[in-house]
Amino acid sequence: MIRVGIVGASGYGGGELLRLLTVHPEFTVVYVASQSDAGKDVASVFSPMRGVSDLKLEPYDCDRALELADVFFLPVANGRAMKTAPALVNAGRKIVDFSADFRIKDAELYESTYGITHSCPELLEEAVYGLVEMNRDSIRSARLVANPGCYPTAAILSILPLLGQRDAEGEGRRGEFIVDPASIIVDAYSGVTGAGRTSLTLDYHFPEVNDSMTAYKVVGHRHTREIEQAISCCLGVSPPVTFTPHLAPIGRGILETVYATLTRDLNSKGLRDVYESFYADDPFVVVLPEGQSPRTGSVRGSNYLHIGVFVDDRMGRATILSAEDNLVKGAAGQAIQNMNLMCGLDETSGLKAPGLYP
Amino acid sequence: MIRVGIVGASGYGGGELLRLLTVHPEFTVVYVASQSDAGKDVASVFSPMRGVSDLKLEPYDCDRALELADVFFLPVANGRAMKTAPALVNAGRKIVDFSADFRIKDAELYESTYGITHSCPELLEEAVYGLVEMNRDSIRSARLVANPGCYPTAAILSILPLLGQRDAEGEGRRGEFIVDPASIIVDAYSGVTGAGRTSLTLDYHFPEVNDSMTAYKVVGHRHTREIEQAISCCLGVSPPVTFTPHLAPIGRGILETVYATLTRDLNSKGLRDVYESFYADDPFVVVLPEGQSPRTGSVRGSNYLHIGVFVDDRMGRATILSAEDNLVKGAAGQAIQNMNLMCGLDETSGLKAPGLYP
Amino acid sequence: MIRVGIVGASGYGGGELLRLLTVHPEFTVVYVASQSDAGKDVASVFSPMRGVSDLKLEPYDCDRALELADVFFLPVANGRAMKTAPALVNAGRKIVDFSADFRIKDAELYESTYGITHSCPELLEEAVYGLVEMNRDSIRSARLVANPGCYPTAAILSILPLLGQRDAEGEGRRGEFIVDPASIIVDAYSGVTGAGRTSLTLDYHFPEVNDSMTAYKVVGHRHTREIEQAISCCLGVSPPVTFTPHLAPIGRGILETVYATLTRDLNSKGLRDVYESFYADDPFVVVLPEGQSPRTGSVRGSNYLHIGVFVDDRMGRATILSAEDNLVKGAAGQAIQNMNLMCGLDETSGLKAPGLYP
Amino acid sequence: MIRVGIVGASGYGGGELLRLLTVHPEFTVVYVASQSDAGKDVASVFSPMRGVSDLKLEPYDCDRALELADVFFLPVANGRAMKTAPALVNAGRKIVDFSADFRIKDAELYESTYGITHSCPELLEEAVYGLVEMNRDSIRSARLVANPGCYPTAAILSILPLLGQRDAEGEGRRGEFIVDPASIIVDAYSGVTGAGRTSLTLDYHFPEVNDSMTAYKVVGHRHTREIEQAISCCLGVSPPVTFTPHLAPIGRGILETVYATLTRDLNSKGLRDVYESFYADDPFVVVLPEGQSPRTGSVRGSNYLHIGVFVDDRMGRATILSAEDNLVKGAAGQAIQNMNLMCGLDETSGLKAPGLYP
Repeated sequence: MIRVGIVGASGYGGGELLRLLTVHPEFTVVYVASQSDAGKDVASVFSPMRGVSDLKLEPYDCDRALELADVFFLPVANGRAMKTAPALVNAGRKIVDFSADFRIKDAELYESTYGITHSCPELLEEAVYGLVEMNRDSIRSARLVANPGCYPTAAILSILPLLGQRDAEGEGRRGEFIVDPASIIVDAYSGVTGAGRTSLTLDYHFPEVNDSMTAYKVVGHRHTREIEQAISCCLGVSPPVTFTPHLAPIGRGILETVYATLTRDLNSKGLRDVYESFYADDPFVVVLPEGQSPRTGSVRGSNYLHIGVFVDDRMGRATILSAEDNLVKGAAGQAIQNMNLMCGLDETSGLKAPGLYP
Repeated sequence: MIRVGIVGASGYGGGELLRLLTVHPEFTVVYVASQSDAGKDVASVFSPMRGVSDLKLEPYDCDRALELADVFFLPVANGRAMKTAPALVNAGRKIVDFSADFRIKDAELYESTYGITHSCPELLEEAVYGLVEMNRDSIRSARLVANPGCYPTAAILSILPLLGQRDAEGEGRRGEFIVDPASIIVDAYSGVTGAGRTSLTLDYHFPEVNDSMTAYKVVGHRHTREIEQAISCCLGVSPPVTFTPHLAPIGRGILETVYATLTRDLNSKGLRDVYESFYADDPFVVVLPEGQSPRTGSVRGSNYLHIGVFVDDRMGRATILSAEDNLVKGAAGQAIQNMNLMCGLDETSGLKAPGLYP
Repeated sequence: MIRVGIVGASGYGGGELLRLLTVHPEFTVVYVASQSDAGKDVASVFSPMRGVSDLKLEPYDCDRALELADVFFLPVANGRAMKTAPALVNAGRKIVDFSADFRIKDAELYESTYGITHSCPELLEEAVYGLVEMNRDSIRSARLVANPGCYPTAAILSILPLLGQRDAEGEGRRGEFIVDPASIIVDAYSGVTGAGRTSLTLDYHFPEVNDSMTAYKVVGHRHTREIEQAISCCLGVSPPVTFTPHLAPIGRGILETVYATLTRDLNSKGLRDVYESFYADDPFVVVLPEGQSPRTGSVRGSNYLHIGVFVDDRMGRATILSAEDNLVKGAAGQAIQNMNLMCGLDETSGLKAPGLYP
Repeated sequence: MIRVGIVGASGYGGGELLRLLTVHPEFTVVYVASQSDAGKDVASVFSPMRGVSDLKLEPYDCDRALELADVFFLPVANGRAMKTAPALVNAGRKIVDFSADFRIKDAELYESTYGITHSCPELLEEAVYGLVEMNRDSIRSARLVANPGCYPTAAILSILPLLGQRDAEGEGRRGEFIVDPASIIVDAYSGVTGAGRTSLTLDYHFPEVNDSMTAYKVVGHRHTREIEQAISCCLGVSPPVTFTPHLAPIGRGILETVYATLTRDLNSKGLRDVYESFYADDPFVVVLPEGQSPRTGSVRGSNYLHIGVFVDDRMGRATILSAEDNLVKGAAGQAIQNMNLMCGLDETSGLKAPGLYP
C-alpha cells in the first residue's frame, strides 16, 4: 500500500479524500494534518468516519509528514500550498495540490487574481495542471500537480472538443476550432459545498439557501482566468470568457451550460459525434445519448462527468451541458485520478463506483 | 365586491388564485369549476383552505358561471381556453386566461408550436398580451387578456429595456436598441411547480428532483416563441432566441440569466440606470442596487420581480438576472394585476405583500 | 392606523413582522430598531422589502421610540426584553415580547433554565402568557404579553384538549383530564429558521442540514419548562414531560407528534370530537378531518395551526399531530394575534391569508 | 467471482444493488430481470450506470436465471417473491428477498397485514429473518433470507439492547429486559425513496414534499407487525407497539426516535454502556459518544447505522435515536451483508465505504 498524507484535512475536500481512500485498493491514509482541528479524532470531525477510522488530526509537521507518508494531497487554502509544497516536493514526494497556487501559470495573473504574491514561481513552472483529459501524459511524470478548480473542470471539459481535436499523442491540438471563441459563455450552478466548510456566513445559512436560487460574483469570478488559460493552451490565446456562477440549494453538484456559436454546419448529432470521438478513451467523461441532459444527481459521489450536446439549428448555436460532483470530479476524485497516474496505477483505481442515485 | 369565477381550479395556478384572492379587498371568489375535482370541497383539494373556505368545486357550466360571477380567471390547459372563453366574453365578462391559447398572435405559429388548431382566431386578434409593464393601457380596456407564460414574463422584463425606451404614452418604443438582438440568450431555472400539479411523472418524483439539477427541452421549448414575439413587438422582427430551461430542486421560483452583447459603451452602472429609468413607474419590477443579484427566495409568494444588472466591460456583454415567483408574477399574481387594471382598480390591489422570507 | 415600533428587527422574527404588517389594515410600522444593523435600510437587511419599505433601522432609543409608536413588538434575545419592556410599559405602551423573559412565571425556574437573573420580577407577575387559545380574555386587557415559544405553541395546543374542557368563561378547566399526564411525550421537528438568523454555526450551514435529519438537546431543551408550566396551569401540577426537538431540512415549519395514554375509552372519532369541540371558536386552530395528518407545507406563511387526531385502539394511546409555521403562529403571527386583541381589534385582523402552498 | 442475479431490478432497491455490487470484490452481476423495463439497458434506467455497465434488463425467465447466476437478490413487490423464490431455492440457489413475503412468520398474520394469501408456507418456515445483528449464525447457513423492512431495521436495532443481553452463542437472550415493553413508542421519519420509484402519486410529487413534513398511516402501518415480531422473538410475546411513520423532504435516510420507560435505574452513560457492549462485535452498528445524536446525512449511501442513547433522569425514560440509509442498511446494503454471510465471505465485504458527507 502507498502511504498517503493529507494536509488540511478538515474541510469538505479533505473529508471526501478520507471517504474515497477508505476503499482505495492501493492507497492508505496514514497522516492527516489540520490547523483548525489538530488534536481531534478524524471521526469527531467527520461523523461518517465513526467506527471506520481511528486517525487523529495533527498540527502539520513537515518532518513527521515525510517520515510517515509517500505521497501527499494538499486540500489547503490558496497561499498555503505554495508554502507547504516545496519541502515535500524537494524531498521526493509526489503532491496533488487542491489550491489555486499552482494552477495559473502566469505569476502576475495569479497575484492580480488572488491577491497573493507567489512565493514559489520555480515550482509554478514545473507544476502540471491536473485536468487528466487534457494533460494525461504530463501528469504521469509530474512531481506536483495542480488539481483544477471545480467550475473550470466542467467548463473546460465542455469546451475542449470545440477547440480542435487531439493529435496522435493525445494532448496537442490539430485541425481547426469549430466555434467562435469570443462567443463562449459559461453559465454555472453549484451546490453549496463549493463554498467550503468554514465559510459560515449568512449567505450559506440553511434558511437563506433553501428553496431558493441566486447568482454571485456575476462578473469577475476568479475561475474565469483558469478557464481562459485552458482555452489559451489550445488556441495560443484566449478571448475573455463570460462565466456566471450561481448558487443552487443542493449539497454537491455542478451543472454548467456552455453556449458557443458554431463556425461549422453541425447539427446536434454531428456535434455529439465530435464529443464522443474526443472522449472515447476517457473513462470518466460520459457523453450522453442524443437528446439527454445530464443530472447532477446521477454523478453524486462519483468521479464521472456527464455531458449532453445540443445545437439550435436556427442560428447554429451549440449548448453543451455538463454535470459533475464538485467534491469528486471537481476536487478529491480528480485528485486521486491524478495521483493514480503519478503512481503508475490504473487511472480508475478506487474510483469506479457509480453515482449515488437518488 | 366583484364576484370572481375560476374555471380550472384544481392545479397550482388555481390554488394560488384562491390564496391571493382570500385577502383581496375587492374581489371575492364565488364560483370554482374543475373537471378533475368536481364535487370536492376546495379545502379537500387545497389543504391550506381548511377553515378558510367553504367553496365546493363544480363541473363547469357556462350558464351557472355567468349567473354567479362578474369576471373570470381561466387557469386551464392549452386548447381548453379557446373553447371556454368565447361564450364568457360574448356575455360581457372580463377574462384573464392562463393558457397559451391567446398569447401567440399568429394562429399558424400557435398551431405549429402547440399542435392545436386554433378554433377562435377572432378573439385571438382581440386578446391583449397581459404583460402589464409592456401593455398597461391596452389591458385597461381589454375584454380578454392572455396571461403571459412564467418563463417569458421574466425573460421579456429582462430584455425590454435593451430594446429601446418607451415613448411618452408609455408603450411604444423610441430610440435605438442597445444590444445585438441576435446575441440574446436566456438561461432559465424553474422550480417544479412550473410543471404543474398533475404531471405525476418520474421526472418530478421527489427523489429524482431532490438535491439535483438538470435541463430539459434544451432546444425548442415552446416559450421561446413567446419571447421572440415580444421582441418582435418592439423591433418589428425578431431573430431566433436561445432559451434553455432547467429544473431546480425548489418549489416556486424562476431565476433567469439573460446574456446580450451591448452595441453601446455602457458599464454596469450605466446599464442599471437604463433599467431603473425604464421601470420607474412599474410597482412590481424592482431594479436591485448595483452589484446585487436577485434571489428567488426574496420574491417567494409575492408579485415582485427583482432584476440585477451587470456588464462585463472586457467584451461589453450584459448579464441580466431576474427572479420571480412563477406562480405569482409568473401566473396568478400577474393575472390579478391584469384583472385589477381591467376592472379599474389600483394595479397593486391585493398584491402588496412582500415575499415570504425565508 | 395604530403606529407600531419593532425593537430587535434584524432577525427572522422581526422580518416576519415587517412582512405581515405591510398588509395589516390597522397597524403601520413607524419605528424599527436593531443593535446589529442600525443605520441600514430595512430593504438592505430584508431583500423582499425592496420597493416596499423605506424604513431605516435605528439604534434603540427609548424616548424616540415612545415619541413615534403606540405599541411595540420586541423580537429580542432572552435577557434583553426584561431591560427594554419596563420603560415602555410604564409609559403606557402595549407590548408583545418574543423572548422567554416573561414566559416562565417562576423567576427561579427562569434563572435555572435560562441562566439569567430576572431583573424585573414585578412585570413577570403581570405579564400574560400569550397563547390566545388558552388566555384570550386576559390578553385583551394585558399591557405586556409574553409571546409563547414556537415549540410550546404547537405542543400546548395539542395537549390542552386532553387536560379537560374549558369552563363557560372560556379559560378555566372543568371536567377531568382524559390522559395520564405522566405519559405525555412531545416529539418535535423544526425547520432551521427556528435557530434564528444569527446562529451561523456549522450545525446550520446549508450542506450540513440539507437532505439530512438529526435531533438536538435530546433531554433538557428549555421549552420543556414552558410546556410543563402550561400543563400545570390546567392541572395545578405537572409531571415532567418528555420533549425531543429535531432539526429538519426545511426553512419554516414545526411538526409535532404528541403521544399520551388515554384514561378513557375513546376511538379516533371520539377523540377528534373532543378536539373539534374544544377549538370550535378558535379561528386559527383547524382540526383536520378524521384520518388526515397535518403538513407543515399547508400552513407555510400563515397563522393557522392544523391538528390531526388518532387513537391506536389496541392500547388506548392517542397520537396527536400538529403543524404550524414557527415564524407565524409560532412567533410573529401569534404576536400580531395578541396585539390585535390588546388593541380591541378583530383577532384575525391582517392574519387571514391561508398558507402558501406549495 | 460469484455470479449474481437480480430479479426486479428497476426500482430504487435494484438500482442500489447495482451501485454497491459494481465495486464488490467477490460478486459480479450477470443477470438483471425486470417486468416493467425489460428490453432496456440498465444505463437507460439508471443514469449513473452510463459508461459503467452494459447489462440489459430481461423479462424474468427462471431457466435462464438458473443458468447464469449462482445467487439471487429479489427486490420485488410483496406477493411476487413467494412465487419466484421456490424454484430458485429448490435449484440450490441462495436467495435474499427484499419483499415482506418471508418476514412475518405467522402466515395468517401476513395475510391479514398484507392482504395476500401466502402460497409458500413451507419456505416461510425455513426462511431466516435477515437482521444480521439478531440472527447472524442462522443467516450463515440459510438458503432463503428475508431482508428486513427499512423501518424495522432501525427500530429493532434501537430496541434490542433494551430487551436483555445476548447469551454466549451470540443470539439468545439472557438476563432481564430493562424497559416496560408496553411503553415502547417508535417515532420515525423517512426520506421519500422509501416510497419506491413507481409510486408516482401526488403525495410524492416534488412540490408537495419539498420544504414540508407530514405523517402517514399514523396507526396501523404494516411494519408495526415486523417490529412486534422481533420483540416477541426476544421476550416470547410482544405488547402492541406504537409506530408512527412520517415523510421528510429528503431522498434517503431514516431517523427514528424510540421512547421506552426504564425499569432499572440507569442514566445516559449507563444505558449507553449497555448499547456499546451489546453491539461490540457488530461492524455496522455504531453507538455514538455520549450526548451525540445521529444524523441521516452521516450514513448516506453507507451500510452503517448510528445510534445515540439518552435518558431523562427525571422520569427514567430512555430516548434512543438511530439513523440509517433506508436503501443501504435498510435494503440493498443489508441484503449484501446477508449474502456475504450466506456465501462465507467477510460480512463487510464490499460494504466498507463510509457515508457520503455532505
